[in-house]
Amino acid sequence: MSKKSISFHRKLKGKIQIESKIPKITNQNLQLIYTPGVASVCEEIYINPESKYDLTSKGNNVAIVTDGTRILGLGNIGPDAALPVMEGKSVLYKKYGNIDAYPICLGTTDKKEIIKTIMAIEPVFGAINLEDIESPKVLDISNELVKRLSIPVFHDDRHGTAVVVLAALLNSLKIVAKKISEIKIVVAGAGSAGYCIAKLLNFAGCKNIIILDSKGAIHRNRKTNMDKYKKELAKFTNQKERGQLSDVIKNADVFIGVSGIKDLLKPKMVKEMNEKPIVFALTNPEPEINPTIARKTGAKIVATGSFRYENKVNNALVFPYLMRAILDLKIQKITLKILYDTALAIASTIPKDRLSEKHIIPLIDDKNLQLRIKRCLKKN
Amino acid sequence: MSKKSISFHRKLKGKIQIESKIPKITNQNLQLIYTPGVASVCEEIYINPESKYDLTSKGNNVAIVTDGTRILGLGNIGPDAALPVMEGKSVLYKKYGNIDAYPICLGTTDKKEIIKTIMAIEPVFGAINLEDIESPKVLDISNELVKRLSIPVFHDDRHGTAVVVLAALLNSLKIVAKKISEIKIVVAGAGSAGYCIAKLLNFAGCKNIIILDSKGAIHRNRKTNMDKYKKELAKFTNQKERGQLSDVIKNADVFIGVSGIKDLLKPKMVKEMNEKPIVFALTNPEPEINPTIARKTGAKIVATGSFRYENKVNNALVFPYLMRAILDLKIQKITLKILYDTALAIASTIPKDRLSEKHIIPLIDDKNLQLRIKRCLKKN
Repeated sequence: MSKKSISFHRKLKGKIQIESKIPKITNQNLQLIYTPGVASVCEEIYINPESKYDLTSKGNNVAIVTDGTRILGLGNIGPDAALPVMEGKSVLYKKYGNIDAYPICLGTTDKKEIIKTIMAIEPVFGAINLEDIESPKVLDISNELVKRLSIPVFHDDRHGTAVVVLAALLNSLKIVAKKISEIKIVVAGAGSAGYCIAKLLNFAGCKNIIILDSKGAIHRNRKTNMDKYKKELAKFTNQKERGQLSDVIKNADVFIGVSGIKDLLKPKMVKEMNEKPIVFALTNPEPEINPTIARKTGAKIVATGSFRYENKVNNALVFPYLMRAILDLKIQKITLKILYDTALAIASTIPKDRLSEKHIIPLIDDKNLQLRIKRCLKKN
Repeated sequence: MSKKSISFHRKLKGKIQIESKIPKITNQNLQLIYTPGVASVCEEIYINPESKYDLTSKGNNVAIVTDGTRILGLGNIGPDAALPVMEGKSVLYKKYGNIDAYPICLGTTDKKEIIKTIMAIEPVFGAINLEDIESPKVLDISNELVKRLSIPVFHDDRHGTAVVVLAALLNSLKIVAKKISEIKIVVAGAGSAGYCIAKLLNFAGCKNIIILDSKGAIHRNRKTNMDKYKKELAKFTNQKERGQLSDVIKNADVFIGVSGIKDLLKPKMVKEMNEKPIVFALTNPEPEINPTIARKTGAKIVATGSFRYENKVNNALVFPYLMRAILDLKIQKITLKILYDTALAIASTIPKDRLSEKHIIPLIDDKNLQLRIKRCLKKN
């Protein structure tokens, strides 16, 4: 796979390119699109700023912004090495959302500089997609940008992951016949994804969420390695459990791995979970547990974030479609309600009689996804 | 023209879009271009940074950066209203240079912030094209970026305009049988274009250049409205002439207008020029003199920067082809020698026996331009 992927990329020299929408450039066209004709288009936008959405590409342009500090499960590999992932996202944005998303890989990891840079490039874009920036820095950046920009800020690691997880979970619970209000969910990883997953699960009615970071279970009395986001989580999660994953996994109904750590979930931990355990091992490229092993050890439903296995719980199922809806419906702020409704829309794409342990989430190219998400969000 | 151009843009909703290079997205392709396969591509670049030119789009990506302060002859209309021009450039970059150029319209006009923003976005691009930023700020920005970036900085208003002017002038001089070392050239406008035109004319052997800004002729004893770039010009131009355009135009062989002022050159001024006067009225969208009037008043050769008239002395003839050569030949710094050689290459594209008063410069789609420029620059 590794060699094949590299040679595939070498042949392409990048996965995206700019395409001109002008079918044929004649001398007359040149006068319209360039000089002198373009001057009147500029003047029109100068006089009537909102016309920029009709006269330029802005309304369909999305910046995929990263600083390369948290690329997949690879960590801080820098902006150059991050570009293949951002180009991949751009391909998916185009294919599934017909969105023109452009990779912006930043040569700075400084929070203030990142905010300033994104503010500086705002005029070209209809929305910002923050991507693979380390947490909690990215949460600060995201919050600050929401205040300062006049275009929506979508944070895929946070919003996209939380939506696809909730969608997959809602369908899984139908299969195992459990209620979200009655189950215990363990979330391994308290970065952007874990943070938003916990908040969305809580919004969806889950009353028993345990979330862990590298120091173990987060709770309101913990003093070390806390930040304002973890304190926020501690307010509505984990009433009394303490310790590491091996401690809190006991009697859990659901494991959600967004930890970045390969093989974090041991087979014996799966055995200690509640009956019909649900295991979402979502770290890429290598999951928290090999799905075949998880299943053999007793997991009733297993999903990963990889397109290599069944039950592909990957935010790629979300971002092109949700962003299309954001741009078309002119959604300015991404709220938990919007994420929840999107998850419901995605989950309901599979009719109940077609749900199965190996089919909890629609395929990325499901033709109904876009329509359902848009219809659902229109009501907001 | 104005209404037609606006409705043309409204129909297109922008002139460029992103295109995926992946012909068909299958589940197997997804594994190669996205997760898990893309991780190995990221790691390859992390280990071997130069492979980014083979494995990503970087090597063919150019940022067209503006802050909207000096758009065409319209002045400071801001980044939103600037976007149609930048998209137009992108279309031409693609069409004639097969280059993927992306508009970056900045929401700041602060010199330091512009420099920092461009430094921050460097990782995605193979070169920077500075565009329509007010002078002398843009010269400071350009000089600073050349020091700080590891990719080339092309400044089209400066470099592109100077090249196309010299190319057109060399051919015009063949027609009127004058030598560049023996003529007097008046350049109206001392912004980025005028600055570099004067320097390149000097490099090409012209010994009598008078350059004017809004205060009149620049000379070494002038105290007002001088900056370091004008002082630099004063060192090698204008030995003794003083006054306004109406004063210094007398006995000039060539007028080059890059002033941004419509109808600056009056018919009676053309009459006071030397025999067989050459008039390049290059301001867009409206030239320094209507070309029909210029010709009627006695100008032997007339050119504008507009695609509406004959003799289209527009930098669009330069930037796609020169940038292609810069990227392919890995030219790091754009020197006067490179600009001079490019001008020679462009001029020589028209065989001497096909030169005429109405055909001093090749058409933008001349198939020989790319080959000649590349061949010429390869020798550097």
